[in-house]
Amino acid sequence: MLYITRRERFSSAHKLERNDWSPEKNREFFGACSNPNWHGHNYELFVTIKGDIDPETGFVLNLKGLSKLVKAKIIDKMDHKNINLEVDFMQGKIASTEVLAYEIWHQLEADVKTAGAILHCIKLVETENNYVEYYGA
Amino acid sequence: MLYITRRERFSSAHKLERNDWSPEKNREFFGACSNPNWHGHNYELFVTIKGDIDPETGFVLNLKGLSKLVKAKIIDKMDHKNINLEVDFMQGKIASTEVLAYEIWHQLEADVKTAGAILHCIKLVETENNYVEYYGA
Amino acid sequence: MLYITRRERFSSAHKLERNDWSPEKNREFFGACSNPNWHGHNYELFVTIKGDIDPETGFVLNLKGLSKLVKAKIIDKMDHKNINLEVDFMQGKIASTEVLAYEIWHQLEADVKTAGAILHCIKLVETENNYVEYYGA
Amino acid sequence: MLYITRRERFSSAHKLERNDWSPEKNREFFGACSNPNWHGHNYELFVTIKGDIDPETGFVLNLKGLSKLVKAKIIDKMDHKNINLEVDFMQGKIASTEVLAYEIWHQLEADVKTAGAILHCIKLVETENNYVEYYGA
Amino acid sequence: MLYITRRERFSSAHKLERNDWSPEKNREFFGACSNPNWHGHNYELFVTIKGDIDPETGFVLNLKGLSKLVKAKIIDKMDHKNINLEVDFMQGKIASTEVLAYEIWHQLEADVKTAGAILHCIKLVETENNYVEYYGA
Amino acid sequence: MLYITRRERFSSAHKLERNDWSPEKNREFFGACSNPNWHGHNYELFVTIKGDIDPETGFVLNLKGLSKLVKAKIIDKMDHKNINLEVDFMQGKIASTEVLAYEIWHQLEADVKTAGAILHCIKLVETENNYVEYYGA
Repeated sequence: MLYITRRERFSSAHKLERNDWSPEKNREFFGACSNPNWHGHNYELFVTIKGDIDPETGFVLNLKGLSKLVKAKIIDKMDHKNINLEVDFMQGKIASTEVLAYEIWHQLEADVKTAGAILHCIKLVETENNYVEYYGA
Repeated sequence: MLYITRRERFSSAHKLERNDWSPEKNREFFGACSNPNWHGHNYELFVTIKGDIDPETGFVLNLKGLSKLVKAKIIDKMDHKNINLEVDFMQGKIASTEVLAYEIWHQLEADVKTAGAILHCIKLVETENNYVEYYGA
Repeated sequence: MLYITRRERFSSAHKLERNDWSPEKNREFFGACSNPNWHGHNYELFVTIKGDIDPETGFVLNLKGLSKLVKAKIIDKMDHKNINLEVDFMQGKIASTEVLAYEIWHQLEADVKTAGAILHCIKLVETENNYVEYYGA
Repeated sequence: MLYITRRERFSSAHKLERNDWSPEKNREFFGACSNPNWHGHNYELFVTIKGDIDPETGFVLNLKGLSKLVKAKIIDKMDHKNINLEVDFMQGKIASTEVLAYEIWHQLEADVKTAGAILHCIKLVETENNYVEYYGA
Repeated sequence: MLYITRRERFSSAHKLERNDWSPEKNREFFGACSNPNWHGHNYELFVTIKGDIDPETGFVLNLKGLSKLVKAKIIDKMDHKNINLEVDFMQGKIASTEVLAYEIWHQLEADVKTAGAILHCIKLVETENNYVEYYGA
Repeated sequence: MLYITRRERFSSAHKLERNDWSPEKNREFFGACSNPNWHGHNYELFVTIKGDIDPETGFVLNLKGLSKLVKAKIIDKMDHKNINLEVDFMQGKIASTEVLAYEIWHQLEADVKTAGAILHCIKLVETENNYVEYYGA
C-alpha cells in the first residue's frame, strides 16, 4: 500500500458566519473572520490517495487523472470564487477550513474509487500557520 | 548603506473591476479576477528600508518600530478586509497588485523618513507565482 | 474526527550535554551540538489536535484559543530564551528535539483536553533537514 | 515511541518507460515523462524512523548516523545520476516515484534496524505538487 | 516604474560538458555535473518585467499574457526535455545555469517589448542552494 | 554581467547587548534579543557574486569553489557557535543582523576578487520575517 499526494491551489473569498446569529455574536465568536464584506485566502489542497503499485505501470493511479478530477470537482468551482455564495457543495454550511475539508472529501471519495484507488486524506492549508486534515472517519 | 526587510502578511478579499466598464468587458479583460462576488489571497508584504548602521546600536532602524508602523498603517486596514470596499487608501482605485504596491509605498514613505530611515522597496506577493516590486520612482 | 494544526515559532539557544559526562565524551557523542558556549535555532512547532466538528460553529476548536494556549504554555517560556537554563519544564533534561517534543506534549495535553479537544501530535522542526513527531504513546 | 525525520536531497535524470511497449504506447500512457531523451528532478527524500528515547542520550537515534547511512545507500547512488541507467536497485524497474519510494525503503530497512531503530516512512517529493509515502506494508 | 514577476517551472535533464575536452577533463572541471548519463533538476524561472501602471487597467502588463508567452517560448521547449539535446536555443552551448539564464533572456526580450513592457530580469533557480540573475547587460 | 548566488546555512547563538549599557537599558532598547542567557537562530546566508560568463566553461565562477570559500571563512566559524563569544570577526561588535552582514562582506570581498569575480551582495536571513542585504557601499 502506497500513499500518493497531489497538491492543487485555489484563491477564494469567504467569511465565517451563522445567519441565525446577530452580527455581534458572529463578531464575538468568529472575530475578524466574520467580516461581512468578506476576506480571502490562497488555499493549498493536498489530496492523498492510497493503493497498491500496479506492476505493469509502476503507478498507484495516474496523477494526471487525479489532477484532472480534482480540478473538475473542486478547483474549477472554488478558484476565484466566493465560497459562501458560489460553491454548490458549501451552500448553507459554515465556510470553516474544517467543513471545507470534510465537504471536499465527500466530493472526491466516490470518483477516486471509480478511478481504482482509495481516498486517504484531504489536507487543506488556509495560511502558513494553520491547516486541517480529514481521513474520512 | 544597508537594506533591511520586514515581512508582514494579510488575508483580504478583492476583485479587479472598472465600474465604468460593462460586466462583459470586465470579464473579458480581467478574467476570473473580475468575479463580482469577490475572491481573495494571502498577501505577503516585504517592506525594505535603507540607511547606515547606527554605530551605537548596530541597527539601521529598530525592526520592532518598523513592524509596528506597517501594522498600524497597512495590516490593520487590510487584514481580513475587503480591499475594494474597506481600505481607505484604495477607494476609487483598481485593486491590482501593482496599484496596491504603489499605494502602500505612499502610505509608508513619510513615516519611514520620520523614523530616520529611507523606504527602498515595497514587494507584494499575491500568489507563489506572481509578485510586484515598487522602488518609488 | 478531524485534525487541525496550528504552527507557532520560537528562537532559542541550547546545547546537548550530560553534565555527568566529561567535555570530551560530550564532544565525541553530541558533536558540534555540545558546544559549551551554546548555539541556537528557529524552531517551528506544529500542534495538532483532533475532534469532531461542532455543528453549531463549524469548528473543532477555536484556533485562536489554541494559539493563545500554546503561546502561554510554550512560546512565552521558550522564545528568545536559553532552553537548558531558563525553560522550567526542561530543567535537568537533555535539550534534544526528541525530549523537547515529548515535554511540550506533556505541557499541553491536559489543557487541550480541558478546552474540549484531544491533543494528537506535536511536531517540532529544528532545521529544514530534521524534525520530530510525538503522538503521546 | 517518537518519530524522527531526516531530509536528504538528490538531483537525477529519469524517464517513465516500459521497453516491452511501443514508443507510442509509452507516450500515450506516460505522457511527457516518457521522453526518450530523459528529463529530471530535484528530489527531496524524508526518512522517518521510530523508537523510544534513550534516557541516557535524549536521542532515538543519532541523526548523524542516519544521515550517513542514507547518503551511503541512497544519495551517493542517485545524486547527479540517471535513475534508469545507473542506480543498481532500480535496474529493470519503472522509475516512478512510487517504485522509487518502495525500493528506497528496502535499501534502508535492515540497516536502520541494525542501527537500533525502526524505519517508519519513506516520503519522496518529486515536485512541489506531488509526493509519495510508503510505510512498509 | 513598477516591476512585476511571474514564476514558471520546468523539469529537465542536462549535463555540463565540452565535447572538445576529454571525459577526464570534463569530470575534473565540472565534477558530478558532467555525468555522461545526465542528471536533472526542477528549475524555477522568475521573469521580471518593468513598466508604468496603465491608469486604465491598473496593470503594467497582463500577467496572463506574460505567462502564455513564457510558456510558448521557454516552458514548452524545456519541460520534460533534455536541455543539451532538445532545446533549440541551447544547441552547441554549455548547459550551465548562467548560459541558460542568458539565453532565456534573449528568447523573451523582443516579445516582451512587443507586448508593451521591458524585460528587467531573468532569475533561474537550479536548486534551493543556487540561482542566477541576468539583467540584460 | 551575470549574478550568481550560493546559499549556505548556520545555526548560532547570540544576544544583542552593549556592555557599556546597564542591563535595564539593554532590555529597554534591544528587548527580548538582549536576554543575557542567549537565544539563537537558523541563519540563511545568500552570497551573490557578479561577473561575465567565461565562454570556455559557461561559468562566472565555479560555485563549488565559492561554496568552499564561504564555508572556510564564515560557516566553519559560525555554525553551532556563539557569535558574541566565539566568532573572531565579531569580537567587540554588536551581533545584529546588519553588523553581521556587513562583517561577512568584509570577510569575503578580497577572496572573491582573488577567485576572479566581484562580490555583489550579502543577504542574511535571520527569521522568515526579516533579513538584511549589503552591497558594499
